[in-house]
Amino acid sequence: MENKGILIVISGFSGAGKGTLVKELLRQYDEYALSVSMTTRAPRPGERDGVDYFFTTKEKFEDTIAAGGLLEYASYCGNYYGTPKAYVEEMLAAGKNVILEIEVQGGTQVRELFPESLLLFVTPPSAQELENRLRARGTETEDVILQRLARAAQEAPYMRDYEYIVINDDLQRCVSEIHRIADVARSKPDRKNKFIETIGEDLKQISKGAK
Amino acid sequence: MENKGILIVISGFSGAGKGTLVKELLRQYDEYALSVSMTTRAPRPGERDGVDYFFTTKEKFEDTIAAGGLLEYASYCGNYYGTPKAYVEEMLAAGKNVILEIEVQGGTQVRELFPESLLLFVTPPSAQELENRLRARGTETEDVILQRLARAAQEAPYMRDYEYIVINDDLQRCVSEIHRIADVARSKPDRKNKFIETIGEDLKQISKGAK
Repeated sequence: MENKGILIVISGFSGAGKGTLVKELLRQYDEYALSVSMTTRAPRPGERDGVDYFFTTKEKFEDTIAAGGLLEYASYCGNYYGTPKAYVEEMLAAGKNVILEIEVQGGTQVRELFPESLLLFVTPPSAQELENRLRARGTETEDVILQRLARAAQEAPYMRDYEYIVINDDLQRCVSEIHRIADVARSKPDRKNKFIETIGEDLKQISKGAK
Repeated sequence: MENKGILIVISGFSGAGKGTLVKELLRQYDEYALSVSMTTRAPRPGERDGVDYFFTTKEKFEDTIAAGGLLEYASYCGNYYGTPKAYVEEMLAAGKNVILEIEVQGGTQVRELFPESLLLFVTPPSAQELENRLRARGTETEDVILQRLARAAQEAPYMRDYEYIVINDDLQRCVSEIHRIADVARSKPDRKNKFIETIGEDLKQISKGAK
């Protein structure tokens, strides 16, 4: 329990730089692992089962839903995507901090299943900066950019449901901020249950002069 | 608001080393300030008004209680001791993290008045170590040592009411742990109200294509 990893839910606006942040965190520290999603869509060339996704059939996916085996799931373009609970639990038990990149609003659902999870919201320093980043990609039409900004506007109020707001102004500063947040979470009482029990019992014994 | 300091409540067993920790934190970082208590007891030689204590009369102390001007107070050996709210608020407004060393159980009361305060519980790594430290002082009788241990045994269950458990195994490690905890608290949404509002409004404007 005390050495269990922490489930870190990372949400944020599209274009906030979550992917780069997570990649850098995984590269710099051994103690993080990325949650692998399960999907019914066909593997694309180069995608590996168990690394990029757990590829499965529609039947097996629905069995997993029915068995309560998913942390969260959604259907998109006729395919299922979800987060297998067992994989996350295995990694946590192995002491890894498991990172779950998830849609805004989904974070609070995860927290119901894993009350000790850390909910982080990643945002650019300003709306203007988000627009700049979306435009800098140079791959999207004006319509798509406005859609993404409109969606960000809808998502903004949900920032308050997250435990920490990480302002992505600088990649390295952000990576170490997330690492500090995860590190500090290990000092919470719900991660010190055994310590609290033991010291309480020992103090009782010692103060009786029995030891 | 965003640049306001954080109220840090530090509680813990007698003998846990809170005093040394706080002294070291104040020495190493400019951003911390220690709350100054108000008391009706007479100044001892060398004690300075406004530094060691705010010295006052019984009448003025009771007026301050009546006016809701104290964060917490207690009566001890016929004298009042309390934490003036105004002083704490001034220091917080000036951007200082204000440290309040307070009895176990008192922390939760402070939190009702300052919901954004951080509650830290400082403990030695084991009951045995606490006993060793109390004995190492060499100034207390066996009876007093057993009383302190008995009190610690009663206080132990309250550890769960604190936000963080800081295990004082090494002074420098602990000082930086407390500093990290305070630092990370600045990323909580209740310290980013203005940012959340502004980015929400700006995103609405921008996504309308109005900007």
